[in-house]
Amino acid sequence: MDARGWVPATAGNISVRLADGRIAITSSGTHKGFLTPADVMAVDLDGHARTPGKKPSAETLLHCQLYRLFPATGAVLHGHSIAATVLSMAEEKQIRMHGYELFKAFEGQTTHDATHDLPIFPNDQDIARLAAAIEPRLREGCPLGYVIRGHGVYIWGPDMPTALARLEGLEFLLACELEKRRFSP
Amino acid sequence: MDARGWVPATAGNISVRLADGRIAITSSGTHKGFLTPADVMAVDLDGHARTPGKKPSAETLLHCQLYRLFPATGAVLHGHSIAATVLSMAEEKQIRMHGYELFKAFEGQTTHDATHDLPIFPNDQDIARLAAAIEPRLREGCPLGYVIRGHGVYIWGPDMPTALARLEGLEFLLACELEKRRFSP
Amino acid sequence: MDARGWVPATAGNISVRLADGRIAITSSGTHKGFLTPADVMAVDLDGHARTPGKKPSAETLLHCQLYRLFPATGAVLHGHSIAATVLSMAEEKQIRMHGYELFKAFEGQTTHDATHDLPIFPNDQDIARLAAAIEPRLREGCPLGYVIRGHGVYIWGPDMPTALARLEGLEFLLACELEKRRFSP
Amino acid sequence: MDARGWVPATAGNISVRLADGRIAITSSGTHKGFLTPADVMAVDLDGHARTPGKKPSAETLLHCQLYRLFPATGAVLHGHSIAATVLSMAEEKQIRMHGYELFKAFEGQTTHDATHDLPIFPNDQDIARLAAAIEPRLREGCPLGYVIRGHGVYIWGPDMPTALARLEGLEFLLACELEKRRFSP
Repeated sequence: MDARGWVPATAGNISVRLADGRIAITSSGTHKGFLTPADVMAVDLDGHARTPGKKPSAETLLHCQLYRLFPATGAVLHGHSIAATVLSMAEEKQIRMHGYELFKAFEGQTTHDATHDLPIFPNDQDIARLAAAIEPRLREGCPLGYVIRGHGVYIWGPDMPTALARLEGLEFLLACELEKRRFSP
Repeated sequence: MDARGWVPATAGNISVRLADGRIAITSSGTHKGFLTPADVMAVDLDGHARTPGKKPSAETLLHCQLYRLFPATGAVLHGHSIAATVLSMAEEKQIRMHGYELFKAFEGQTTHDATHDLPIFPNDQDIARLAAAIEPRLREGCPLGYVIRGHGVYIWGPDMPTALARLEGLEFLLACELEKRRFSP
Repeated sequence: MDARGWVPATAGNISVRLADGRIAITSSGTHKGFLTPADVMAVDLDGHARTPGKKPSAETLLHCQLYRLFPATGAVLHGHSIAATVLSMAEEKQIRMHGYELFKAFEGQTTHDATHDLPIFPNDQDIARLAAAIEPRLREGCPLGYVIRGHGVYIWGPDMPTALARLEGLEFLLACELEKRRFSP
Repeated sequence: MDARGWVPATAGNISVRLADGRIAITSSGTHKGFLTPADVMAVDLDGHARTPGKKPSAETLLHCQLYRLFPATGAVLHGHSIAATVLSMAEEKQIRMHGYELFKAFEGQTTHDATHDLPIFPNDQDIARLAAAIEPRLREGCPLGYVIRGHGVYIWGPDMPTALARLEGLEFLLACELEKRRFSP
């Protein structure tokens, strides 16, 4: 994620569900390109720290929400790319996409011949309120993940390799959409 | 290919013709940036698995088509770049190019002073049908390879270094064409 | 910085405040992608060489200015990106930004819901005169750093990891602004 | 050069003047990202091979021309970037640039406050004829190097680090110019 420029400064966060049900997540203020084991902490499904002396980032709640809602989720990635930032500040409620072979990287998708909306949620420093705004849409189904305006994407999967492949797929789709809007702004 | 961003998620596939006539090809669902020997399998020229317990990707048939039609072909690359995706969704039947020195990277080309069409085929989840649509154009001659709409390019050569050089050349040409269309959308 | 393309040729410079109060800074004409210990020299707070036989670059004065004005500053970075160069040549007095989550990477910022101006100063080969032009703005407060037209950005922090995170944040914001101006030039 | 994408396929070539007066240059058809000692050959100042069994690339003559005309030249680089290709196909006779701090990376330049023209020459597969077309302009002075249309840049310096720094500077200027033309195509 760092090599691709998707976690500038201390943006972004990364988590996996552990065998004992806790969540391992990058702690607040860490640079994702220089991670050490000490930069990762454990939290419970409500986002409370389970590693002494570590403070979870506020966005930990958005990870926990996905683990609680979707029991099959094993990994969650939050990236912060230029394409996601710019498109989410230019569009109103969603980024509509059609006809990409890469749709097949996402859960349950078997064809390019489909239209998908990536929902955009307004940014909010009150993460509990933001999570509450997102939850109904997650329950409807959200195969491509979602984006927070001016902030970045959330995507998840049954394990880290799948979540990472979906993040690459989503960022590819966003980069294509950004290129397309240059043809017809 | 991974370092250049041409095989996002589990997109793309890579093959070589073995000395015994079989084809070694990346198997279905593998990430090309994390390949291990276990991610490569053997198939025959009809695309049937010759490695027990491995499933070839559907697109294996497009590789086999090239090996069958062109006996001198030793390697085939399928990449999935932003430029190929966006241009193939913006143009109708081909991407026309003129005047590039890099034409000389392709089979039989000796001058920049030429015009070449990169043919675009509509994407199709039925790969046998897609192969049938492509075959007449391959027989006419197709030195720059071809592109499947919203999906990516196919390019080949007598060996892997030549196929990789042609892929780099083709992606360079597509990136230039994308830049040019920004001057006059 | 080199891997991101922010220090082309021998552009850019990098400094830290040492425990004894001197400043360690890259010396004149060094390529930041091939730095060795011999490419770093010590200066005092007035920019005079404290390493025998080494010549400080002219821009050393801009680093010293920041260390003198802001006692909490421990590291200063001067980068030279395409986005900073192009935007600073297209805009008059500042680059105005609004609504980015990444504002929180900068000193004292706690929300995306704000507007910040990145001040632009005209380039000047007389660095003492340039420093004098910059100083009043620095005293007013300048959390995102500043940019010299056609030349690049200056950003600082209490230590090198923080300064680097802020540089990544600033370059991300500039890259976003450059993308946005393509929608509405 | 390979990591930056400036030598796609087998494009580009690299040379240095040896202590005995011969020129060491990458031989024809080599990929610059996979160079081994066997990919480099010696030629004399007229471009004749001085390594048995090796064939110099046609463009070797353009390197020799620079070494003959400018005795202080110790290294020559020919790169093949997207920006150089696209801009040289969009402009007529030169690419005019003004006001860049990075001008100071080039021979004899001490200020940003200047205007420089990067001359464009039409591509020609007859390299002797191309060299003859370039020579008068080289004699006039050509501090930023030159570009061949649809083909790439030539830049040189007293040694390889300086030539590489100038190449980085030139590609940075070209990338900036390409971005600027998006504001006002």
